[in-house]
Amino acid sequence: MSSITVQVSPEGSLEVLSKLEVGKLLDSSESALHELFRNCSLAVLNCGGQVDDSKAVFEKYRNFDIRVLPTARGVRLELINPPQSAFVDGEMIRGIREHLFSVLRDIVYTRFEIVGDPKFDLSESRHITDAVFHILRNANGLVPDVPPNMVVCWGGHSIDRGEYEYTKEVGYELGLRGLDVCTGCGPGAMKGPMKGATIAHAKQRIRRPRYVGISEPGIIAAEPPNPIVNELVIMPDIEKRLEAFVRVGHGIVVFPGGVGTAEEILHLLGILMHPENKYLPFPLVFTGPRQSAGYFEQIDRFIEATLGQEARKRYEIVIGDPAQVARRMREGVDLVRQFRRHHDDAYYYNWLLHIEPAFQTPFVPSHENMAGLALHRDQPAHALAANLRRAFSGIVAGNVKAEGIRRIEQEGLFEIRGDHSILDPLDELLATFVAQKRMKLPGTTYEPCYRLVA
Amino acid sequence: MSSITVQVSPEGSLEVLSKLEVGKLLDSSESALHELFRNCSLAVLNCGGQVDDSKAVFEKYRNFDIRVLPTARGVRLELINPPQSAFVDGEMIRGIREHLFSVLRDIVYTRFEIVGDPKFDLSESRHITDAVFHILRNANGLVPDVPPNMVVCWGGHSIDRGEYEYTKEVGYELGLRGLDVCTGCGPGAMKGPMKGATIAHAKQRIRRPRYVGISEPGIIAAEPPNPIVNELVIMPDIEKRLEAFVRVGHGIVVFPGGVGTAEEILHLLGILMHPENKYLPFPLVFTGPRQSAGYFEQIDRFIEATLGQEARKRYEIVIGDPAQVARRMREGVDLVRQFRRHHDDAYYYNWLLHIEPAFQTPFVPSHENMAGLALHRDQPAHALAANLRRAFSGIVAGNVKAEGIRRIEQEGLFEIRGDHSILDPLDELLATFVAQKRMKLPGTTYEPCYRLVA
Amino acid sequence: MSSITVQVSPEGSLEVLSKLEVGKLLDSSESALHELFRNCSLAVLNCGGQVDDSKAVFEKYRNFDIRVLPTARGVRLELINPPQSAFVDGEMIRGIREHLFSVLRDIVYTRFEIVGDPKFDLSESRHITDAVFHILRNANGLVPDVPPNMVVCWGGHSIDRGEYEYTKEVGYELGLRGLDVCTGCGPGAMKGPMKGATIAHAKQRIRRPRYVGISEPGIIAAEPPNPIVNELVIMPDIEKRLEAFVRVGHGIVVFPGGVGTAEEILHLLGILMHPENKYLPFPLVFTGPRQSAGYFEQIDRFIEATLGQEARKRYEIVIGDPAQVARRMREGVDLVRQFRRHHDDAYYYNWLLHIEPAFQTPFVPSHENMAGLALHRDQPAHALAANLRRAFSGIVAGNVKAEGIRRIEQEGLFEIRGDHSILDPLDELLATFVAQKRMKLPGTTYEPCYRLVA
Amino acid sequence: MSSITVQVSPEGSLEVLSKLEVGKLLDSSESALHELFRNCSLAVLNCGGQVDDSKAVFEKYRNFDIRVLPTARGVRLELINPPQSAFVDGEMIRGIREHLFSVLRDIVYTRFEIVGDPKFDLSESRHITDAVFHILRNANGLVPDVPPNMVVCWGGHSIDRGEYEYTKEVGYELGLRGLDVCTGCGPGAMKGPMKGATIAHAKQRIRRPRYVGISEPGIIAAEPPNPIVNELVIMPDIEKRLEAFVRVGHGIVVFPGGVGTAEEILHLLGILMHPENKYLPFPLVFTGPRQSAGYFEQIDRFIEATLGQEARKRYEIVIGDPAQVARRMREGVDLVRQFRRHHDDAYYYNWLLHIEPAFQTPFVPSHENMAGLALHRDQPAHALAANLRRAFSGIVAGNVKAEGIRRIEQEGLFEIRGDHSILDPLDELLATFVAQKRMKLPGTTYEPCYRLVA
Repeated sequence: MSSITVQVSPEGSLEVLSKLEVGKLLDSSESALHELFRNCSLAVLNCGGQVDDSKAVFEKYRNFDIRVLPTARGVRLELINPPQSAFVDGEMIRGIREHLFSVLRDIVYTRFEIVGDPKFDLSESRHITDAVFHILRNANGLVPDVPPNMVVCWGGHSIDRGEYEYTKEVGYELGLRGLDVCTGCGPGAMKGPMKGATIAHAKQRIRRPRYVGISEPGIIAAEPPNPIVNELVIMPDIEKRLEAFVRVGHGIVVFPGGVGTAEEILHLLGILMHPENKYLPFPLVFTGPRQSAGYFEQIDRFIEATLGQEARKRYEIVIGDPAQVARRMREGVDLVRQFRRHHDDAYYYNWLLHIEPAFQTPFVPSHENMAGLALHRDQPAHALAANLRRAFSGIVAGNVKAEGIRRIEQEGLFEIRGDHSILDPLDELLATFVAQKRMKLPGTTYEPCYRLVA
Repeated sequence: MSSITVQVSPEGSLEVLSKLEVGKLLDSSESALHELFRNCSLAVLNCGGQVDDSKAVFEKYRNFDIRVLPTARGVRLELINPPQSAFVDGEMIRGIREHLFSVLRDIVYTRFEIVGDPKFDLSESRHITDAVFHILRNANGLVPDVPPNMVVCWGGHSIDRGEYEYTKEVGYELGLRGLDVCTGCGPGAMKGPMKGATIAHAKQRIRRPRYVGISEPGIIAAEPPNPIVNELVIMPDIEKRLEAFVRVGHGIVVFPGGVGTAEEILHLLGILMHPENKYLPFPLVFTGPRQSAGYFEQIDRFIEATLGQEARKRYEIVIGDPAQVARRMREGVDLVRQFRRHHDDAYYYNWLLHIEPAFQTPFVPSHENMAGLALHRDQPAHALAANLRRAFSGIVAGNVKAEGIRRIEQEGLFEIRGDHSILDPLDELLATFVAQKRMKLPGTTYEPCYRLVA
Repeated sequence: MSSITVQVSPEGSLEVLSKLEVGKLLDSSESALHELFRNCSLAVLNCGGQVDDSKAVFEKYRNFDIRVLPTARGVRLELINPPQSAFVDGEMIRGIREHLFSVLRDIVYTRFEIVGDPKFDLSESRHITDAVFHILRNANGLVPDVPPNMVVCWGGHSIDRGEYEYTKEVGYELGLRGLDVCTGCGPGAMKGPMKGATIAHAKQRIRRPRYVGISEPGIIAAEPPNPIVNELVIMPDIEKRLEAFVRVGHGIVVFPGGVGTAEEILHLLGILMHPENKYLPFPLVFTGPRQSAGYFEQIDRFIEATLGQEARKRYEIVIGDPAQVARRMREGVDLVRQFRRHHDDAYYYNWLLHIEPAFQTPFVPSHENMAGLALHRDQPAHALAANLRRAFSGIVAGNVKAEGIRRIEQEGLFEIRGDHSILDPLDELLATFVAQKRMKLPGTTYEPCYRLVA
Repeated sequence: MSSITVQVSPEGSLEVLSKLEVGKLLDSSESALHELFRNCSLAVLNCGGQVDDSKAVFEKYRNFDIRVLPTARGVRLELINPPQSAFVDGEMIRGIREHLFSVLRDIVYTRFEIVGDPKFDLSESRHITDAVFHILRNANGLVPDVPPNMVVCWGGHSIDRGEYEYTKEVGYELGLRGLDVCTGCGPGAMKGPMKGATIAHAKQRIRRPRYVGISEPGIIAAEPPNPIVNELVIMPDIEKRLEAFVRVGHGIVVFPGGVGTAEEILHLLGILMHPENKYLPFPLVFTGPRQSAGYFEQIDRFIEATLGQEARKRYEIVIGDPAQVARRMREGVDLVRQFRRHHDDAYYYNWLLHIEPAFQTPFVPSHENMAGLALHRDQPAHALAANLRRAFSGIVAGNVKAEGIRRIEQEGLFEIRGDHSILDPLDELLATFVAQKRMKLPGTTYEPCYRLVA
């Protein structure tokens, strides 16, 4: 089979690599680094793809490769057998070209300046927070002189047409109010708000709108960034990605989703319920179209049953009213501005938010770790939230991540153990996700990767 | 009833009026000028409205008024009882604000520098062409150093959902190929391509996309500009608007529409069929989704029956293939570039296109003029095209323009006379428009404003 | 002799001419227009020249010509035998290239939109003011959203090294305080402040500094614009140029100079002394280095002797203190801002300044007109100022303007008649100018072009 | 004595520091870091000062201090008793404000990312080169998509008026040809070319001219950056500063100077004479006004006597012809472009230039090291050049650096030993520097800090 080779140059980007950095990328002993770079690049190029199974993506494009070429005018990339969806009449879409170089930037930086730098002790909480800060700063993601206006949108990549249209409308109303959008990349609720905001920003003549996508190597192939994303950041793992969301976002909107969305909700509530964050303003709205009202009733019930009434005070549920969602965000973000100014905290990074190590330490979803999760009531609510977050995280891995799928294939279903009073609502919630087809993209049949053992 | 007053300043625009100009706008003896300005402003503010009946719009907002206030920092506008659709939480959408000042700019310029300047003898063809040029130049619509890339999109403001989605897809594919979009403003086929192009331009990181809207006082209330339009030009009448389209556009895409679209097609074919334009490249594609294929078969048959085979050589029909439409435009526009360069003609204004006075002189759709149209075969095809164009123009006026609606109310239906060989295909075409509900926005019942008399 | 031909394109400028406009520029019947364009273009190209005698310049470059070529990408200019000082290693200096197109823009506009437009009755005061406004607006010289910061600098083109260095220092101090500079173009006091301000603006990181040069066809060859000038405007005559200065400047600094400077001072004082302008703030500082203190003592004495004490209240004399000059301007300009805001007058055009027709009507310095000037005390001081201004204007013409030099050659010296009480101080002043070599560039011997007859 | 406190914010700069970074700057245990930051900041603020004795500067402003304050909108600086020369009417000059934040950026980066990062083994040549690259990249000093155009200007800070005017003219001619300027900061030959280039860039409408200043903590107080410098980089020591010059410069112009200039010349010639650099194009011109011709004859003789004929092939001497200097640079820089393109080397960093460790390792000018320099002929010419460079470096330290002055005060004069055939020309050269008053700023008497011992 003949192979196709394409060269792309960064044009306008600032990718300037040193001899040592290029050397390491080309170095055969750094094969893990190369594979990471190759896989993330493939994900970015495959952005139009309709598959959310990372393993399938990697198999389909196993002939793909990428190389870094230093040249007189900067660094160029050579692509072998790239997915055709990245091109229009033979020209790569410019947004995708930028993403390729963002991937390069973040992979190089994380490898050499974070992991390879003893200044960061990544077992320590404040060093993790600092590492997240450094990666974002290096990606030009921390803009100092701008008042708070970044709304993070969470929600499923696998949502139905009505829910998708609703996310566009919310994005549109956010954009009309001058708010920018940050999502986790991927289709569905991660793409809709950006499309809506793009139209609104055009109408409002906003010159430099920001569409920030925050991903991580494990998920990017399943949820590739839409080319509208004009700031792509690859965090090293899921926990740092979540920390990035809550530290750069000035408010969060949650759309219907599946276990990934549940993971995000639990992560955030667990943090916000910590006593130190009690008075910290953090606008949080759960929203969906009228026909999805049942979804959030279920989530709301689950939170009440597991984390209690206190947790419910940190969010508001708005059904079928995009303009109201946007108004609540606008108001909430303005409060954040006043609070930050009053406490002399940066607008661009939420230093004051206290995050426990339990939310920062990477959770490896092995069968053993999943089975050992402490899902009982002998702990404060925010600690229980951390453990529930891990349970959802493991299920996401088993559903769509290459490593997780392999584990399930080899070792069978995850076993999740705990108290009845927690496993029962959990069981109900997961069953609903399956029934509502929120586990995988439409058209595929879902095979659970877990078993609950009370 | 209490009235609401809002002041808007141009912020970033360059509206600098002289004492004399402001004086005339405030002058009670210039009431026609003020009314023109008021009505166009109202149309622009009412952009979200769902009514295509100018008369109804003006009646609904009869309490609306607008005033020009000179201030230290430039000119400000005062609005009394403006439509609320122009505002988001009390703030006017910035695109609409710009449109207001574009209206002011063009009305003032046309009044003082074109109509009021004896240098222009508007009964002479080349002076009309020069006047169109001057109005566009004054509106910064002639950008000298840019290769041809402006695609004009024509089509109905009243099209169904499937057709509308199709226009968005075509706009998206045009935008992916770096093409800009110009339309006649209004909803439907005038809005869809711009929305699609906006998303594509964001993906391609096109910094200064152009979304040009060309309107005229008689139609703007029925077809208000979408706020995405970032260059709005108000031409003084329908004929100068059509000339503006064909002189600034480097290619034209026609979507399904009604009589207005038929008017535009006849106008353009009549010009292109003139012997002097025989070798002039002008890409022209008729396109719609698969389910609208019948529409263009009908148009194609009508053109063949009235103007003959020669006319059919100037266009191509593409069904259900947005990417193909965009590729054809890209290729055609590149040919235009070569041709202009070879003939040292400007990229930004098609000086070499020959336009007969019959296409430039305003046609007043009185009952007498409509009855007197020469719809027979004793004339060259391009002259017949000019007269058919007038017939369609009159029907548009009777359907949606305030003045035309009034005439029909007062004097009854227009009578259109001519040869059987022309009236029969015309009758068939118009009947189809009515049957397909292409005459008015959905939800209204169409009452014909004409009667064919063979 | 072989001729050299060079083509230049506007690159970045917006020169878009219509067919009719290009036609008229190429039209042999419009030979006056062509000559005007040719001469102003020559002046602009000759900017490095060391001759202030227009006639000599035109003779030296009598083989020079210029043509307008319409092309696909806009208008191009063809130069035949241009002065080599405009080029660096064969490339025209970009500032000069811009000036050429500014000349084209203003000549075309004045010819077709001012002189050729019956809307302007140039015998009427408010129409003249409006015409000045239109020419400046067309040249993008009226920027609406900027607080007052434009300081006009007047003074001699023929000043000594010490005075020249002083003008640079004043420009530097103005620039450090964020003030822009406008001058009449040419060397000496018109160039120094711009050079100083350029350095200061670089230090203050001012992104878009404005260096405005206002000239007119009669003087431009003797005082060609320095390429630092980034906004060049050619007014049609000396009176409109003076009106442009006083309407766009927010404050004026006068350096030592000769009769031209005296003309400017008399013009401004005559206007400011009019009762209607009594309370209008207009910062005016006369300044020079310590060694030039005598110069302003003489001017001060002359003003007192002719116009009286009242006139002296409108200016302040600062000697040898550039920072103080800049501070006074900064304070004065801030007062202007408050005044304009309070009276809702534009920042960019001093509409409220009352100017009598005597200061607006072109004065033709014929022998008859010079002899007929009313230099007596039977008139208000501001009227006497107008007549003194004309006397100085005639002497400038006789000294450096092509037409004036020709008149003196043909008809002998101008005779200037009047009362002793006026002619005596005038005689003294002129004699000082001659003695101090302020009449012509250094190195030339001055032959008076006038005779005072009491 | 009361103290004055001023707060400055970065406004437009991107200084975003992490909690850990701010913490270390505020940390009392990091007192060396604070002192470094304080001293460099003081130097930057004292830019208008007329003293080139670092020790005197520090004594004069011993009450000065600076603190970093984190705030909601980024980091702010608090200055206690800053030099008044940094302010205009109480407002800090914006260029100086930028410099303060550049100092902060580089000091923090060097401390935490270079010195504190074990990835860099600063005893190894390629790691030093990489460290220089990282510091420049972090300072946004490596711009990838720009063709070579950076001319480094070296020469004395203490030159006479005629030489200074000449450096301005050369800068002007460089600027007219679109070349940017990089110097070592400070007055004299480091300031003149930037002033000249600023005027030329204004005339050529160059939108983003680059005036790069490269300094280091030991010299910055004696040679503070002029506020025109719009990219200031603080390298950690003199050797890395020299490496930065030769890796970012595409050509070098050397004006008359003293020992510092001699050090720079020897450094560069030593590098260029290495066999690996034999075919590497590197335009190098020594130039001065006619009256300084003797200076370069002397330098030329010294080079011939010590390094031999081969060394003379790497430079050209141009006397009294600024335009010719600029033309030679333009041509040379164009050759560099071709060479880099051919060898696929970056435009923005001269990776291919081979630099021996002898030129990279910091030389500590202790009395012992100075006495031990190998100034004999038993070594290749490029090695001798390295040692001569060190000798000059030591003398610079003894003349103007705080640490060096202290050493001389405490331990007496440096002794420099070597062969007659080297010490004799050295003695002659140094004697000329003293005689021509090139050792210190005018007005001070020079006391030698060395003694030659053959």
